[in-house]
Amino acid sequence: MDNRAIGVFDSGLGGLTTVKELRRLLPYENIVYLGDTGRVPYGTRGRETIQKYAMQDMAFLQSHNVKMIIAACGTASSAITSEMTSHLGVPFSGVVLPAAQAACASSISGRIGVIGTTATVRSGAYGRAVRGINPDARVFGSACPLFVPLVENGFIQPDNEITIKVARIYLEPIIKFETDTLILGCTHYPIIYDILNQLLDYKVTLIDPGKEVARWAHSYLISEDMLSSSQQKGGCEFFVTDAPDSFSSTADIFLGEHVDSQVTQIDLEAI
Amino acid sequence: MDNRAIGVFDSGLGGLTTVKELRRLLPYENIVYLGDTGRVPYGTRGRETIQKYAMQDMAFLQSHNVKMIIAACGTASSAITSEMTSHLGVPFSGVVLPAAQAACASSISGRIGVIGTTATVRSGAYGRAVRGINPDARVFGSACPLFVPLVENGFIQPDNEITIKVARIYLEPIIKFETDTLILGCTHYPIIYDILNQLLDYKVTLIDPGKEVARWAHSYLISEDMLSSSQQKGGCEFFVTDAPDSFSSTADIFLGEHVDSQVTQIDLEAI
Repeated sequence: MDNRAIGVFDSGLGGLTTVKELRRLLPYENIVYLGDTGRVPYGTRGRETIQKYAMQDMAFLQSHNVKMIIAACGTASSAITSEMTSHLGVPFSGVVLPAAQAACASSISGRIGVIGTTATVRSGAYGRAVRGINPDARVFGSACPLFVPLVENGFIQPDNEITIKVARIYLEPIIKFETDTLILGCTHYPIIYDILNQLLDYKVTLIDPGKEVARWAHSYLISEDMLSSSQQKGGCEFFVTDAPDSFSSTADIFLGEHVDSQVTQIDLEAI
Repeated sequence: MDNRAIGVFDSGLGGLTTVKELRRLLPYENIVYLGDTGRVPYGTRGRETIQKYAMQDMAFLQSHNVKMIIAACGTASSAITSEMTSHLGVPFSGVVLPAAQAACASSISGRIGVIGTTATVRSGAYGRAVRGINPDARVFGSACPLFVPLVENGFIQPDNEITIKVARIYLEPIIKFETDTLILGCTHYPIIYDILNQLLDYKVTLIDPGKEVARWAHSYLISEDMLSSSQQKGGCEFFVTDAPDSFSSTADIFLGEHVDSQVTQIDLEAI
């Protein structure tokens, strides 16, 4: 038994989809969430900058004495190396490996697509993870840099002409590659699940890494006897690096429930 | 005479349009440019965060002993207060006042539109500046948060269907307001000048704040006898806060010439 909280971080608020799944699977766990909203997005930045920001994010969660750290951010997960997490002193997972495992379990043809931010696709992290599991698999990536701003600005209706047009451009190489499984390698993409599914003719299995890492956490805590002993619904503490004013409205989209917890603004540069 | 450099900063690389105009008007001046590419964009963030970042940007330029500081960023300019600049010890201008002056000079009806980032429009800075010059003028703002990602991802062709569709949504309230002058309140918007001009039926005067602030600098340096005494073409030093790898390709779009100067990555948090 371990009654400490689970630590989750993301470049912004998209990682709340992972929190949502954690709360469904592990209702008695407390969660500490950090969204680096003062520096979001990570996906357009260079690898070293992303690594530096991720190190600061993890140090913040460590300072809250969490029992596990989850990088819910696709971009951060793709840039974090095992060297960066070996000293954390608590179990860590990003979204890449759990999603790669789910994709390999789902794919029959071994032709797996990955869509993500520019940094995620450029990193090749998903390709390495997939081939580590199935050396015969082939992975094809397509960067979709406009999806995050489109989602964040509400262009998410299944019949939104603009988002459909953009998605058609981004999915073209994925369709040509004849994938049977597609990893939605950024927290925001499941929000336009219906548009992607429709353009792929409902023929491709879509993997949501945010959910997969929550399932990993669930299995890990059970197998290592690290579940909370509490019998009361766990709470969430939210921390952000920009003003918390607009947190609630955006958070509700990803969390699927209204957030009435305290949201605290912190300064990562001062840690 | 003053042979020190002019300091220019922006959240990213869009401010290079101001550098381009400065180099045209003031070819003998040296320029120090800072693009906060590790934290771009500013336009989605809260006012206090933008102010904090702008203070760090200005402190960096001060440390380079510049003779003038220009905020080429529409968002930063809208958030910077006179209190923040009174201690700089060198003349300062953002883009708001020069653009407001140009708009007031151009407008006959006094119905002036402003498009910008969410933070710029929310700040109301252009409205205050315009009414300070012409109390009878009316200002109407429309936030265009998708323009920056569209431009940065190359959706800039005059016949680009996606950008045209997005622009039609954003310009609708501006057209209804029957403006005769529109301030393009973000460095990226002049890149899609043709699309905006076409949707406005070529009936609206478009003001480019990045050019206007360069004209202000030109007049100021002449009137205060602060021009460089050099007879050789001035140089540019570029500083960024993310990896400089992709600087050149993006910089060329805004600067309109190839950059072969040294680009140095710096850490603003360490200043």
